[in-house]
Amino acid sequence: MNKLRLGTIGTSWITNSFIDAALDTGLYELNCVYSRNKEKGEEFSSKYGDIFVETDLESFMKKDTLDVIYIASPNSLHYEQAIMALKAKKHVMVEKPASTNVHEWDEMLRAAEENDVFVLEAAKHMYIPNLEKVADEIEKLDGVVGATFPYVRYSSRYDNVLAGEEPNIFSLKFAGGALMDLGIYPVYTAVALFGEPEEAIYYPRKIRTGVDGIGTIILRYEAFDVTILVGKIATSLYDVEIYGSKETLIIDHVSHLDKARKVDHQTFEEQEVHLEKQHENSMFYEAEALAQMIETKDEPKTKERYKELSDLARIVSGLLNQLLTQAGIVFDSEA
Amino acid sequence: MNKLRLGTIGTSWITNSFIDAALDTGLYELNCVYSRNKEKGEEFSSKYGDIFVETDLESFMKKDTLDVIYIASPNSLHYEQAIMALKAKKHVMVEKPASTNVHEWDEMLRAAEENDVFVLEAAKHMYIPNLEKVADEIEKLDGVVGATFPYVRYSSRYDNVLAGEEPNIFSLKFAGGALMDLGIYPVYTAVALFGEPEEAIYYPRKIRTGVDGIGTIILRYEAFDVTILVGKIATSLYDVEIYGSKETLIIDHVSHLDKARKVDHQTFEEQEVHLEKQHENSMFYEAEALAQMIETKDEPKTKERYKELSDLARIVSGLLNQLLTQAGIVFDSEA
Repeated sequence: MNKLRLGTIGTSWITNSFIDAALDTGLYELNCVYSRNKEKGEEFSSKYGDIFVETDLESFMKKDTLDVIYIASPNSLHYEQAIMALKAKKHVMVEKPASTNVHEWDEMLRAAEENDVFVLEAAKHMYIPNLEKVADEIEKLDGVVGATFPYVRYSSRYDNVLAGEEPNIFSLKFAGGALMDLGIYPVYTAVALFGEPEEAIYYPRKIRTGVDGIGTIILRYEAFDVTILVGKIATSLYDVEIYGSKETLIIDHVSHLDKARKVDHQTFEEQEVHLEKQHENSMFYEAEALAQMIETKDEPKTKERYKELSDLARIVSGLLNQLLTQAGIVFDSEA
Repeated sequence: MNKLRLGTIGTSWITNSFIDAALDTGLYELNCVYSRNKEKGEEFSSKYGDIFVETDLESFMKKDTLDVIYIASPNSLHYEQAIMALKAKKHVMVEKPASTNVHEWDEMLRAAEENDVFVLEAAKHMYIPNLEKVADEIEKLDGVVGATFPYVRYSSRYDNVLAGEEPNIFSLKFAGGALMDLGIYPVYTAVALFGEPEEAIYYPRKIRTGVDGIGTIILRYEAFDVTILVGKIATSLYDVEIYGSKETLIIDHVSHLDKARKVDHQTFEEQEVHLEKQHENSMFYEAEALAQMIETKDEPKTKERYKELSDLARIVSGLLNQLLTQAGIVFDSEA
């Protein structure tokens, strides 16, 4: 198999991280970098050798030297750029959140199908092999009675907000906020492990810029609730806790899934749960998965996996939209 | 000052614990134990020497050798027994929850006033000296943006529920359940530290007996929310977290308050917070407080403290009632 020729949009750390992961798989080569600003693009790409920097978005999308486009622009631009790339018959890996509503996600899926390419949302922890192992451990809990999924982590960009600025990640204009940036991880994990909840409720606290800075989400399932603690203006040290009938399964982090143990409800006795050591770049698996899907694109197993991932993304997108609506958070793109 | 002559209702571990605490203060002597069953009462009291066991409740209440009555009967009996004791002009320490509604608490306060005695609810952590120290540390946080107060601890009695029985603590008949038994602690702590919330919402999961087994409570304040995790059918290892503007204050437990540290939001650097070593019997301070209040009963400072504690109990009682009503939990005594 020839290496997939990768083009990227976005020049922040996350794009570096995806490129590194893609190169690590041995299945990609970096072909082109898009940046509105030539110098910025060249500064960004220089560490990967002599990479062409395209400053015109239309030309970038249509380059016939590209097989895959990775999109990590501000959230509010994901949809439009993904549609452009798909229509240019490029496979697309779009950073989460891929869209702010189900309709947009469906449009992306349709554009992908019509152009015989894939679109995946880069919810990196959905591709980590340990996710299945965690699901197995949950089976062994012999009945879940509840769970707490925390992702409360201070963003240094909040310093800028406090200084009167409005960085993208805290801006309504760019579909920022705690739910869109961090909350999406625990929501994904909950849906992957427990399915679509019957009800979802969000109690956010908004910050000056109008987005949610911190909040609590309740996902109600038939037999139990998952409580999600999310925040970008404070830091929590909590692990993930999944409460079984006799013990609590404790996992280090809702999107890392690389350390776990079980604690007995009554004796507090701890038991290590063996999880495989994961690749140190947590984006490795999503990059690998897309390449493998492209390689085996007509196999039934691939189609099944693609549908599974698309459905998951669709449920998450619907939940995010519902939670934002409840919270009265309206992004500029939706207003 | 002569030692206060103590009478007790209830023969479980908590009554032992209160008697031990009271004797430890050096301000009480155990005078009489009430039990419907003479043998059970004698077995219970034997470790304290030759203590009289009264089997008739009316006679017990009216004994003129008693100054203080401690009530630790099943929750649903607290109100009626407290009123009897107060009308017999005894000071009363009634285990939490003192009542299941504000009206009952007001009746108790009125009976106490009319008979020139005190009634206190045994919310032990409200009397711990470290509570004030924690309040000072919260001041230093320079603005609270949120907090998580967990009290999720499996009860061995739940084994009995699973075996088809209905122990008091899990029974609607005796006003049991997670909120009444454990949730009251974090609710008290929140009200003591932050005042009365503007709104309170409870998402409980009920068990077979009709009471709440586990759930999440959101207390909404003007500038932030407190999320309470409560449960008696699972165990959580979480500490208390109070999120400030630059760091998180972490306290070992919502009702112990004997270890604390601060963790920087960005660097994760930890800083020990010095709290005094507390008496190993956490009920020591409530026993001591009541004795001191009785000794100085006409001093303005005592009246002020009594009003403060009564008001606190009143707010908590109102909140519990509101949360139970929302949850559709109706105790037999209220039905």
